[in-house]
Amino acid sequence: MDIPKKMLAAHLVARGRIEVLETDVPAPGPDEVLLRVQACGICGTDVEIRDHGMPGEPPMPFIMGHEYAGVVAQVGSTVDEFRVGDRVAVEVHKGCGRCHNCIMGKYTACLNFGNRKKGHAANGMTANGGFAEYAVNHVNTLYKIPDEISFEEAALITTAGSAFYAIDAMGGYIAGDTVAVIGPGPIGLALVQAAKALGAEKVILTGTRKGRLELGKQMGADYTVNINDGEDPVEVVKELTHGVGADVVFDAAGVSSSLESALDLARPGGAIVMVAFYKGPVTVNISKAVVRNINLYTVRGEGRRNVRRALSMAAQRKIDLRPLITHKFALKDINQAFETYTKRIDNAIKVIVHPQEH
Amino acid sequence: MDIPKKMLAAHLVARGRIEVLETDVPAPGPDEVLLRVQACGICGTDVEIRDHGMPGEPPMPFIMGHEYAGVVAQVGSTVDEFRVGDRVAVEVHKGCGRCHNCIMGKYTACLNFGNRKKGHAANGMTANGGFAEYAVNHVNTLYKIPDEISFEEAALITTAGSAFYAIDAMGGYIAGDTVAVIGPGPIGLALVQAAKALGAEKVILTGTRKGRLELGKQMGADYTVNINDGEDPVEVVKELTHGVGADVVFDAAGVSSSLESALDLARPGGAIVMVAFYKGPVTVNISKAVVRNINLYTVRGEGRRNVRRALSMAAQRKIDLRPLITHKFALKDINQAFETYTKRIDNAIKVIVHPQEH
Amino acid sequence: MDIPKKMLAAHLVARGRIEVLETDVPAPGPDEVLLRVQACGICGTDVEIRDHGMPGEPPMPFIMGHEYAGVVAQVGSTVDEFRVGDRVAVEVHKGCGRCHNCIMGKYTACLNFGNRKKGHAANGMTANGGFAEYAVNHVNTLYKIPDEISFEEAALITTAGSAFYAIDAMGGYIAGDTVAVIGPGPIGLALVQAAKALGAEKVILTGTRKGRLELGKQMGADYTVNINDGEDPVEVVKELTHGVGADVVFDAAGVSSSLESALDLARPGGAIVMVAFYKGPVTVNISKAVVRNINLYTVRGEGRRNVRRALSMAAQRKIDLRPLITHKFALKDINQAFETYTKRIDNAIKVIVHPQEH
Amino acid sequence: MDIPKKMLAAHLVARGRIEVLETDVPAPGPDEVLLRVQACGICGTDVEIRDHGMPGEPPMPFIMGHEYAGVVAQVGSTVDEFRVGDRVAVEVHKGCGRCHNCIMGKYTACLNFGNRKKGHAANGMTANGGFAEYAVNHVNTLYKIPDEISFEEAALITTAGSAFYAIDAMGGYIAGDTVAVIGPGPIGLALVQAAKALGAEKVILTGTRKGRLELGKQMGADYTVNINDGEDPVEVVKELTHGVGADVVFDAAGVSSSLESALDLARPGGAIVMVAFYKGPVTVNISKAVVRNINLYTVRGEGRRNVRRALSMAAQRKIDLRPLITHKFALKDINQAFETYTKRIDNAIKVIVHPQEH
Repeated sequence: MDIPKKMLAAHLVARGRIEVLETDVPAPGPDEVLLRVQACGICGTDVEIRDHGMPGEPPMPFIMGHEYAGVVAQVGSTVDEFRVGDRVAVEVHKGCGRCHNCIMGKYTACLNFGNRKKGHAANGMTANGGFAEYAVNHVNTLYKIPDEISFEEAALITTAGSAFYAIDAMGGYIAGDTVAVIGPGPIGLALVQAAKALGAEKVILTGTRKGRLELGKQMGADYTVNINDGEDPVEVVKELTHGVGADVVFDAAGVSSSLESALDLARPGGAIVMVAFYKGPVTVNISKAVVRNINLYTVRGEGRRNVRRALSMAAQRKIDLRPLITHKFALKDINQAFETYTKRIDNAIKVIVHPQEH
Repeated sequence: MDIPKKMLAAHLVARGRIEVLETDVPAPGPDEVLLRVQACGICGTDVEIRDHGMPGEPPMPFIMGHEYAGVVAQVGSTVDEFRVGDRVAVEVHKGCGRCHNCIMGKYTACLNFGNRKKGHAANGMTANGGFAEYAVNHVNTLYKIPDEISFEEAALITTAGSAFYAIDAMGGYIAGDTVAVIGPGPIGLALVQAAKALGAEKVILTGTRKGRLELGKQMGADYTVNINDGEDPVEVVKELTHGVGADVVFDAAGVSSSLESALDLARPGGAIVMVAFYKGPVTVNISKAVVRNINLYTVRGEGRRNVRRALSMAAQRKIDLRPLITHKFALKDINQAFETYTKRIDNAIKVIVHPQEH
Repeated sequence: MDIPKKMLAAHLVARGRIEVLETDVPAPGPDEVLLRVQACGICGTDVEIRDHGMPGEPPMPFIMGHEYAGVVAQVGSTVDEFRVGDRVAVEVHKGCGRCHNCIMGKYTACLNFGNRKKGHAANGMTANGGFAEYAVNHVNTLYKIPDEISFEEAALITTAGSAFYAIDAMGGYIAGDTVAVIGPGPIGLALVQAAKALGAEKVILTGTRKGRLELGKQMGADYTVNINDGEDPVEVVKELTHGVGADVVFDAAGVSSSLESALDLARPGGAIVMVAFYKGPVTVNISKAVVRNINLYTVRGEGRRNVRRALSMAAQRKIDLRPLITHKFALKDINQAFETYTKRIDNAIKVIVHPQEH
Repeated sequence: MDIPKKMLAAHLVARGRIEVLETDVPAPGPDEVLLRVQACGICGTDVEIRDHGMPGEPPMPFIMGHEYAGVVAQVGSTVDEFRVGDRVAVEVHKGCGRCHNCIMGKYTACLNFGNRKKGHAANGMTANGGFAEYAVNHVNTLYKIPDEISFEEAALITTAGSAFYAIDAMGGYIAGDTVAVIGPGPIGLALVQAAKALGAEKVILTGTRKGRLELGKQMGADYTVNINDGEDPVEVVKELTHGVGADVVFDAAGVSSSLESALDLARPGGAIVMVAFYKGPVTVNISKAVVRNINLYTVRGEGRRNVRRALSMAAQRKIDLRPLITHKFALKDINQAFETYTKRIDNAIKVIVHPQEH
C-alpha cells in the first residue's frame, strides 16, 4: 500500500476549536499498525473533549476521534495478527499492560491512564485519533471486520461494544429476562438490540423523545414509555412482571431521575448497570438498592474485548447499527458534522466523518 | 375442572417392566398443584430407571416419567402462583429447601436427595411422575407455558433447560464465541440451538451418525464433523479458530474419547462442560486441562431455573425443539414407545407419550 | 426438656412502646424448632421497628428481637438437623423457599417478604422474635454454636454474619488487600475483624468518635482516621496505597458524606459495599464510580449462610465479638436496655437482654 | 550499584546436564529490571526441564531457575515501579500482553507461550532464569519483598502463590469451610497453610509419607490421613462432615488414585482444584462429578497476581514457608542441590541455591 508522507487531520487547536491541518503520517511502532481511516463517528465524549478537555489529554494541537474503522496500511515489526489490506475496527482503550488492573484484565481501569511512556493510550483522548487520513493503533485495540460489515457500521462498533460490555459487567446471559433501558441515545438503543439479541423476553425502553422511542421500537424494544406523556415506567414494568420488577436495568441517561427510576424498576436481587457519565452530583434514594439487594455495576465505554462480540453479532445480523447512522460528512466539514450532532439537526443520532473525502 | 377419583398411569412394576395400571388420582398438598398431563417424553434416564434403578427410587410399583406438561386441574391451599386451567411445564428437581445446597440455590445438588419427608422430590425418579393422567407437582417445579408452545414441545423443555443450564454453569454469555458440541443426542442438539440463540459465531457439532449430524445442521450447527468418516474435529476447530481452539466445549456424549476430544478442542483458558452421565470410568489425559487452564463444569439435567429461560427462548422461536419430536404414542402403548426410543426405530429421537389417549 | 405453657416476652404493644407480657409458649411446626432463648441483642433495626415499623410487620402486640441464641427445647416432626439440648444461634431471614429469588439462593431478597402463609419469616420483624423466654425458628435459620462460644457472643453472630456476607457479596477473598471501613458501629467493627481475619494487609477505619476508633484499633484496624480531627481519609489511603486507593471500601455509616468518601477511597476497578440503611436520599458524585469502573454491592444483613462462616471464625478466635458487648439486662428491664443502647449511655455498643432472667 | 560485565550461571548445556558457566550479565530492556539474585529454589518442573525439556524452551545452553528473589541492580528506561536496591521476588509467567487471554487477565494461559518476540517470557523455562548471579525480569513479574521476609523465603513465594491461586481459581473465600488436600508436597503443604490462613475450619491432609504428614500437621493441618497405614480419607472426611464431604478438595498429587479420591471427598456442589501435572492418562469415575454437580478447576502454577497476596500473608506471618526450606547450596554445587532434591536426601523438601556464593 502506497503511504504518503503527509495527511490531513482534524486537530483540536484550542478549547472549543477544531481545524483540519496537514501533518505527518505517523509510523507504527513494533506492536502497532498504521490504519487508513475510512470512517470515524462523533460521540458525546468528543464534544466534551472539544469543549472541556479530559484528564490525560495531550498538548494541543492533537487529533481527535475515537470511533473509527479503516484498512491496515502498514504493520509494525512484531505484528502478525493483521496484514496490510485487512479491514479493521478499533476500540479506545489500550491499557499500559503493566499495572495491577491491566495485568488482571481490567484495562479500562488502567492505573497509568494517559501515561504514554508506560504504554497506555486512548486514541482520540490521550493520543492522536481517527479524524485523520491515517492513524496508528496498538494491535490490542484492533479487530478484523467481517465482510458483511461496512466501515461506517464498523465505526459504530464501540457503541455496540459498550452495550455488550454493560451486559457482561453485570454477569451476562439474558435469555428470557426482562430488561429496562433508560435513555434512547445511541448506547441505549444499542442496549435494546444487544438485550434482544441475547434473548431478552421483554425490553422496555424509557425516554422523553418520541422519535427516539419509535426508533427504539424498530430496533427491537417490546415496550416504550414516554415519560413526557405522563406514562410511568414503574407501573408499566410492574404490570409486565407481576409486580416483581426488571431483572436488569441499564441507566443510559445519567441524571438523578434516571438513576432513581432504575432503583424503582429493578427487582429485588436484580442488577443496575450505569452506562452514562453523570454530570455533577446525583440525589437518589440509594437505600432502595440496599433493602432489595440490588447491585450497581459500571462501565465507561467498551471493554473486556466485547467489541469482538459486537462485531460478530453485527455480522450475524443479530444487531444492526445502521439505523443509528443519520448523517455523513467529509473531513473538511467536520465542524458542520459536530454541529449537526450537538444540535441534533434533522434528528441526527450518529454522525460519520469520512477522512478520505476532503 | 372435574377431577376423577381414578386414573391410568404407567407403573414400573418390576425391574425392566412397565405396566399401565389404574390408581387413585393424587391430591395436591398445600404448596402443590394437580396437573392433568397432556404429554410426557421418554428420556435416556427413564430407560436407566426401568432397567437398573436409581438412588432414592420409591418402592415399586411407582409411576415413571419426568418430562411432561399439562393443565393445572387443582391447586393447593397456599398456591397463588398458578390457577386452574393454566398450561404448565415441569422441571424434575424439587430440592428439600433446607439443606445447605438448597438454601444456597443449588437445588440439583440437594443433600437430602430422595428424602420425601424432608421435602425433596424428583418426579418420575424418587416420586410418582408424568406417565399418568394426573400428576402432583410442587410449585417450584412448574412454569407457565407461553401460548406459542404446544404441550409436546413443552414436554421437551427440560432438554432445552439442561442445555441452557450447561451454558449457565460455565458462566454464560456466548455472543461471538466458538462452541463445540460433542454428541448429537437430544441434549447435544438442544445445545447447538441454545448456543446459536445466544449468538455463538461458530458452532461445531461432532458425532458418528450422519442423520443426526444433518439434523444438527438444520438446527443451526455451522459445521458438523463425522468422526466415522475419518474427519478430525480438532483439525476442523483449529482451522476455524486460527489454531486457538473453541471457547467452550460441551461433552454430551459421555465416553472416554469424547472427553479426550473435549480436552483437545478447548482453547487455553476455555471451558468444558460435561452434560452426560459417563458409564464406568474414563481414561483421559487430564493434564491437558491443567497445562492450559481449562476448567471442567458439570450439570446433571436442568437446573437454576433455566427451564424458565428455555421456555422464553422457545416462545420467541429462538430455539425450536419440534424437530426432535419424531414419534407419539398413547399411554397404553408405552412399552412400544420405549422400544421405539431405545432401538431408535425409524430414526427416533424424542418419543412422546399422550396420557390422555388410552 | 420441660416446657411450660406460658412465658414472658417483650411485646411491641404500640408504636414506640414495648411491654413485657405473659403469652403462650409457641409450638414448633414440622420443620421448626422451639428454642429456649438465652440471650438476645438490641440492634438499630429494633429501634426502627419500635418507633416507625417495618414492611411486613405483624399486627401488634408482637414479640420483637432478632439477634438471639439459645438451647433447643423441642423439635418438629421432620427435624433431624438438631436435637433437644443443642446450643444454637439464629439468622433472621427465612425465605419463602418458592419464589424465584429463594430458589436461586437469594433468600434475603425473598419476593414473598412478610408472607407467612407462603413460608417467609423474619423473626422479630415479620414474626415473633427473641425477646422472649421461648421462640420458634425454622431449621433454615439455625446454626449450632461451637462450645467455645457463649450465648451472648452467639447472639451477636448476625453482626459478624453481616460483615462476612458483605465480603462475600463483593466476591470475597481478601488476602493482602487494602480495605477501608467507614463507620465504627457494630457492623463496621465486625468488618474490621472479618477483613483482618481473611488476611487484609491494611485496614483503615474512619469515623468521628474517638472511643469507637480506639476500639477499632484494638479489634484489628491498622489505621484509624478521625474525621472530626480534620484528618482526611482519602489522603491517608492514597499515601498507604501509592496513590491507588483501597481495593474494597465498606460504607457502614449510611449517609451522603460516607458514600462520597467511599467513592473517593476505592481504587479504579475496586469495589464498594453498602452495608447500611441510608436515611432519606443521598447526594453523591456517582460518576466517580462510572469513570473508574467501581461496582457498588449491597447487603441488608446477614445472608448466604455467612452466619455459619462467622461462627466458625469466632470459634477459631479469628474474630472476637466480645469487646462489642458492653451491657446486659434482664428481660424485665428491656426498656432500660433500649435506652442504654439508643442514648449510648456509658459508651454502649451492643446491649444484650437475658430472657431467662426476669 | 556496581554491575560487573560477566557473571556465573547454571546453564542447561544438554538434556540432563547442568553446568555453571561464565556469561555476560544481561541488560534490562525499557520495561525490565536487572536483578542480583540472592536465592533460587529448585522445583519439580526444573527436574522435568533438565531431563525432558518443555515446550517453548530456548536453545541450549540456557540458564534455568524460576523461583528466585534478589535485589534490583538496574532499572529499564520506563521503570518507576522499582528502584535500585529494592528487594524483590519473582513470578514465572510474563504473558505476551497482546493475545486474547492476556488482555483478559489470563496471562498464565498466554496464547503466545514461548514467543519472546511477541513479549511472552517464563524465566527459567522459555527464557534465562535465576540460577545466576544476575537475571533480567519484566516489571510484571516482580513484587517488592516486605522487610519481614528473607530472600530464601521469598524464593519460595511462587509455591505459596500457586496455593493461593488455586484457592482463587475456584472462587476463593474459605472461612469456615472444610478443605481436603491430597499430596503433602511443597504445594500441598502451602495449601494447608493458605486454607488455614483464610479461616478453614477443618483441613484434612492425605498422603503416604509419615514425615511429610507430620510436617503438614505442624503447618496447620487439623487431620492427617496416611493411606499407607490403611486409613481411608473418605471415611475420615465423611465423619468430620456429617456424611456430606469437603467443600473444596485440592489434588496436589496428580495421579489417578488422587483424582478418584478427590471425586469421593468433595461434597455435592463442591469444588475440586487440580494443582498438579498428571503424568500420562488418568482413569477415574468422572460421573461422580456430574451426578453431584462438582466442578473441576485447574491451575498450572502461580497466577492472577496471587504472589502479591502470598507475600502479604507471609509478611503477616499468616503463612510461614520456612519449614519447607531444608537445604541450601552454593551455585557451584547446583548438581548436588538437584540430587538432594530429586532423591529427597535427608528428607529434603525445598532446596535453595545461593547464586552469590560460588
